[in-house]
Amino acid sequence: MDRHIPIRLGMVGGGIGAMIGEVHRIAARLDNSFDLIAGALSSTPEKAEESAAKIGIAPERTYSDFTEMARAEAARTDGIEAVSICTPNHLHFPAAKAFLEQGIHVICDKPMTSTLEQALELGEIARKADALFVLTHNYSAYPQLRLARELVQSGALGPIRLVQVEYAQDWLAEPTESKQADWRTDPARAGAGGSIGDIGTHAFQLARFVSGQRPAQIAADLTSFVPGRRVDDNAHVMMRYASGAKGTLWCSQVAPGTENGLKLRIYGEKAGIEWSHETPETLWFTALGEPARKLRRGGPEGTMIGSRVPAGHPEGYLEGFATLYGEAADAIRAYQAGQAIETLLPGIKDGIEGLRFIDACLRSNAKDAAWVELMP
Amino acid sequence: MDRHIPIRLGMVGGGIGAMIGEVHRIAARLDNSFDLIAGALSSTPEKAEESAAKIGIAPERTYSDFTEMARAEAARTDGIEAVSICTPNHLHFPAAKAFLEQGIHVICDKPMTSTLEQALELGEIARKADALFVLTHNYSAYPQLRLARELVQSGALGPIRLVQVEYAQDWLAEPTESKQADWRTDPARAGAGGSIGDIGTHAFQLARFVSGQRPAQIAADLTSFVPGRRVDDNAHVMMRYASGAKGTLWCSQVAPGTENGLKLRIYGEKAGIEWSHETPETLWFTALGEPARKLRRGGPEGTMIGSRVPAGHPEGYLEGFATLYGEAADAIRAYQAGQAIETLLPGIKDGIEGLRFIDACLRSNAKDAAWVELMP
Amino acid sequence: MDRHIPIRLGMVGGGIGAMIGEVHRIAARLDNSFDLIAGALSSTPEKAEESAAKIGIAPERTYSDFTEMARAEAARTDGIEAVSICTPNHLHFPAAKAFLEQGIHVICDKPMTSTLEQALELGEIARKADALFVLTHNYSAYPQLRLARELVQSGALGPIRLVQVEYAQDWLAEPTESKQADWRTDPARAGAGGSIGDIGTHAFQLARFVSGQRPAQIAADLTSFVPGRRVDDNAHVMMRYASGAKGTLWCSQVAPGTENGLKLRIYGEKAGIEWSHETPETLWFTALGEPARKLRRGGPEGTMIGSRVPAGHPEGYLEGFATLYGEAADAIRAYQAGQAIETLLPGIKDGIEGLRFIDACLRSNAKDAAWVELMP
Amino acid sequence: MDRHIPIRLGMVGGGIGAMIGEVHRIAARLDNSFDLIAGALSSTPEKAEESAAKIGIAPERTYSDFTEMARAEAARTDGIEAVSICTPNHLHFPAAKAFLEQGIHVICDKPMTSTLEQALELGEIARKADALFVLTHNYSAYPQLRLARELVQSGALGPIRLVQVEYAQDWLAEPTESKQADWRTDPARAGAGGSIGDIGTHAFQLARFVSGQRPAQIAADLTSFVPGRRVDDNAHVMMRYASGAKGTLWCSQVAPGTENGLKLRIYGEKAGIEWSHETPETLWFTALGEPARKLRRGGPEGTMIGSRVPAGHPEGYLEGFATLYGEAADAIRAYQAGQAIETLLPGIKDGIEGLRFIDACLRSNAKDAAWVELMP
Repeated sequence: MDRHIPIRLGMVGGGIGAMIGEVHRIAARLDNSFDLIAGALSSTPEKAEESAAKIGIAPERTYSDFTEMARAEAARTDGIEAVSICTPNHLHFPAAKAFLEQGIHVICDKPMTSTLEQALELGEIARKADALFVLTHNYSAYPQLRLARELVQSGALGPIRLVQVEYAQDWLAEPTESKQADWRTDPARAGAGGSIGDIGTHAFQLARFVSGQRPAQIAADLTSFVPGRRVDDNAHVMMRYASGAKGTLWCSQVAPGTENGLKLRIYGEKAGIEWSHETPETLWFTALGEPARKLRRGGPEGTMIGSRVPAGHPEGYLEGFATLYGEAADAIRAYQAGQAIETLLPGIKDGIEGLRFIDACLRSNAKDAAWVELMP
Repeated sequence: MDRHIPIRLGMVGGGIGAMIGEVHRIAARLDNSFDLIAGALSSTPEKAEESAAKIGIAPERTYSDFTEMARAEAARTDGIEAVSICTPNHLHFPAAKAFLEQGIHVICDKPMTSTLEQALELGEIARKADALFVLTHNYSAYPQLRLARELVQSGALGPIRLVQVEYAQDWLAEPTESKQADWRTDPARAGAGGSIGDIGTHAFQLARFVSGQRPAQIAADLTSFVPGRRVDDNAHVMMRYASGAKGTLWCSQVAPGTENGLKLRIYGEKAGIEWSHETPETLWFTALGEPARKLRRGGPEGTMIGSRVPAGHPEGYLEGFATLYGEAADAIRAYQAGQAIETLLPGIKDGIEGLRFIDACLRSNAKDAAWVELMP
Repeated sequence: MDRHIPIRLGMVGGGIGAMIGEVHRIAARLDNSFDLIAGALSSTPEKAEESAAKIGIAPERTYSDFTEMARAEAARTDGIEAVSICTPNHLHFPAAKAFLEQGIHVICDKPMTSTLEQALELGEIARKADALFVLTHNYSAYPQLRLARELVQSGALGPIRLVQVEYAQDWLAEPTESKQADWRTDPARAGAGGSIGDIGTHAFQLARFVSGQRPAQIAADLTSFVPGRRVDDNAHVMMRYASGAKGTLWCSQVAPGTENGLKLRIYGEKAGIEWSHETPETLWFTALGEPARKLRRGGPEGTMIGSRVPAGHPEGYLEGFATLYGEAADAIRAYQAGQAIETLLPGIKDGIEGLRFIDACLRSNAKDAAWVELMP
Repeated sequence: MDRHIPIRLGMVGGGIGAMIGEVHRIAARLDNSFDLIAGALSSTPEKAEESAAKIGIAPERTYSDFTEMARAEAARTDGIEAVSICTPNHLHFPAAKAFLEQGIHVICDKPMTSTLEQALELGEIARKADALFVLTHNYSAYPQLRLARELVQSGALGPIRLVQVEYAQDWLAEPTESKQADWRTDPARAGAGGSIGDIGTHAFQLARFVSGQRPAQIAADLTSFVPGRRVDDNAHVMMRYASGAKGTLWCSQVAPGTENGLKLRIYGEKAGIEWSHETPETLWFTALGEPARKLRRGGPEGTMIGSRVPAGHPEGYLEGFATLYGEAADAIRAYQAGQAIETLLPGIKDGIEGLRFIDACLRSNAKDAAWVELMP
């Protein structure tokens, strides 16, 4: 039987007010690969229920305790096959453990655990478990970084000499009290690392993923610039790779004007590549002594890995389309309810205007480009 | 009852080999606003069935004739509430007519019809119908173009003087024979306009949407550069707006090196704005005599309309995440089938490496940034 | 005799308060090709004398009447060999005529004359004269535009289809009363064309220079947006080239946020090129179906025409160096006069700091990158 | 007496085949501040004479020994007032000493000397000398870096936290044997530092110049990637500033695809700035929580320090103009010699074309933008 059947998915964390949970949900839905049907979205029962109802999870599949959820779902014949873990860092370990031990596949946010000890223990658990463990280092799925990795592996850069990676933000430049900032600057929930855990690990993974190199030694200078902060908000790290390559890693959450300033530059004996998160669909490739080439997602010498639309449609294209669809759904619901519809959606008038435009172009062109009225 | 219920959606066109159909499907799914449950994805029965099966539409909701589909779905109590029309242009009119007349909401690709006469007739049909009609001029849903429109309306630019819009591509620079190119260069299926219908109407709609201005007169010089082409592949159009503003519209499908080079620049008495599709999350705003300001999606002075992730996560962020999820689904299916899993997905090892990195940073930092081994 | 001897140069116009005169003087001096020794910098004798003294022209070579200057200089054995004409447009014709008829070479700012009749007459005069006539369409001397021309001529673009050129400014967006604006908006001094004469002619020349194509027909829509302005401040022009190529020319002086926004894009059957004045050292070249290549001044596949420094030193490099030299001259003069010297010039302290840096790097490196004090 | 009199200048080094000597000469000439009249351009008498003749230095002011030159020039009443030293590094010290001790002002290339000991000794010599010493750290004269310094000093960034500076090149990525590469990789002539001396000192000076901060401690990891190279060709340096600010300095001569990749980023508590050598006329300024502002040379909130042309004329503008002048000089010399003239210079024909363009625009516009022939 050939029909497409999405995988049954549960979620831990990601209740109302969370940011990354909704990202995981959209990601699970976008390619129709998963069907979210169960969740322990919060450890507070009321909040768990409210959050679940809002996204269409049935009450009987709503939990506030992830251990119970793991047990209950494993016992159902239509139980979840996989679970997404989107909690603050300190809960990654017990939650992942609970589901892996029930043979439920785990998709977990990073960093994997709060401490190295937990990480090693989870490694043992995963080794024995009848389930997969996936860590969402999402940047390594950008098409142009996949391409970058292929270029390195193909030998196009020659032996690697330099790996410069950085991830700079500014959202913690001042003392803040948002939900997001709160747990990320609390060693009990985030782990001992601040910026190095939250974004440094992304940069570190990306450098390894693309370069195919593993650092042997590092020298790290960590700083907490904001008075009273209990974890680092900036790190300068020098790296020596096992291969003889060298590089630096800089991560910061106190650099005003940077957004999610992830940048990766790798230089080999024969060529160099550069990538920046601000223009994620472009990978610069320069062979020594040749002009820089702008490799675009889906373009020539590019890759279609992870591409859903043809080259030249920037990745936000789908989101723009989805916004129209979302607004159409709102309008339809309002229409069905007999409510007034206020919308920016293009409609019949725009369609007529478009045809008027085509018609006027053809009329003008037929008169050697003379002026014509749009509305004749 | 508060629970989220997606709208029941059908689709006409968008079978195997089509491009825009899949875009509509992802868009419908991304925000969980619609549930695609019926389709006439092709007029060839076998192809309609195969296409439907592939995306999970049940056989009893699979049609090859859209008129029959409209009738049948309207008769069901669980029939579709809305339909997406993703066919070549010449079928937009009969399909939209069929569904509107059954009181089913229509979401239709552009240009709305093949001829102005059809457009006006559809206008009448829509006026009388008990259903909405939405035209997917998707670019008008980009957050920074929504912001641009707000800036114009707020008076920040002063009275508008100039509207420069262009949409340049290169995919028809040579005679081509792809499915996509085929119907777009056939007047019988595309309508009399070539580039002006396919992309010129987008540029035209966008100029109107953002500027809030309607051209009164145009002067158009159309060209078919590729020998044997039966429709225009390039258009230069001068525009005079009713308000006294002026501008040009250039669209081309024969400009090597351009991708989907949609650009909009609007200049008023007090300020100017510039937007380019290649960097869709940036809107440049310059008040006369002040430095240019880079307005970023979700950033300060920005807008969150249509934004799903916080500022600084480029719009492809969700797609990267979705790629990971898709690959996780593949790995889980392979695991369940007892197949070998080859994947680039980060997993336990990456998690351990990440914690080793944090641990090594802390150890080095504790020794005044001395070199430490990553693996102690 | 091998020694380098600069050409003896005079200047008409370019007195105190003028902008373009100083540009001509720096240009004449930069390569040591000319020696400016005579001038009629103003028609007001006092201003002519003051201006001449300020730039080191001897009193006996200072004139207020360019006809007299032409006669007097032609009569001297050490008279000027060439003259630069930097006056408002309406004086170009009589001044050029005066010097050409005396056999003195003319380097003249653009547009060449105020009217087409004068231009044709000057053509006759130049044809008969024993002297050269050079028009300073300076943009055609940018290295990357020279390269663009070579690429077109080499056939790398294939037959040309499209020439899109524009030159947008914002300095006349409001009524202004500067010396620069004053004569440029006065038909008596600027000629009948406003923006088309001042900047449109540059765009027009550049399109011809690089494309090697001449328009056969044009359709122009000129506008004076600023109330009371007597000449156009914006022009939209459609062009049809003799070869079958088409294009548009847009020039504007009322587009807020543009500086000297000269842009040229040329598309042929096989490839396209793009150049923008804001990054003059980059020429984008894209062959159909290949990644865009970033051709940099002096770089691979580049050209050294007009390059004074190796690739990678941006063109402002020389100006930065010259600023240091100018400040050094100021400091030396102040020193000689016994005055206090306040300067940002790097000196001995900076030199010692630099060596301390090198020394500290070597000391730290010798200790496996341990921290060392800069000042041991 | 008010007349402008350039300073009498001599030069040591900079003979045929050198690169930086010609840069110094152009810089000295550009603002007419200096008159180059004497030189010891090479220590080989024949080469010294040939080089001097080529640039117009009189035979009696041509030397091959800089000590003799210092003595002889100091003895003349019309002797040089200042000297430019453009030799390889190891000669900076003896040459600077020779001229300073004769009371002749010194303008010296960087690094100041080969060793720290020499630097300190030169400091003593300069202290006692009746002359100024200027070190050409030219980057600190870029207008937008001067502006950056002003912004820091004004407190617009708040207390500085981070200083990230880098200077990456690729010209030594392979073993090379050019004259330029040769002495720069020879410790005897360049000093013990390779990349750190040649470009690291520039980055170091710039960081100090703009930030107003001095590092207290550094930790440096130097590498010679190219086999057999006797000096470093890459350096990673972590810096701790006396103020508590931190940062890194990276310099490299083996990073393929970088040109003269000097970049400076400074982040304070309240705002951040970014500057890149590839677009030297732009300084990015972002106050925390506000959109990035693009500060352009000469533009609003900009500075005119070091600016010779109005905003919007990129810095290469003068060089393009100078190229035209240089070609005009060539054409005039060829004309005088009765030689054939082959040139790209615009002339009478271009002037007539320009007026035809203006005329055609006016004719078309008078007919409501109807098509007109360019040549009626």
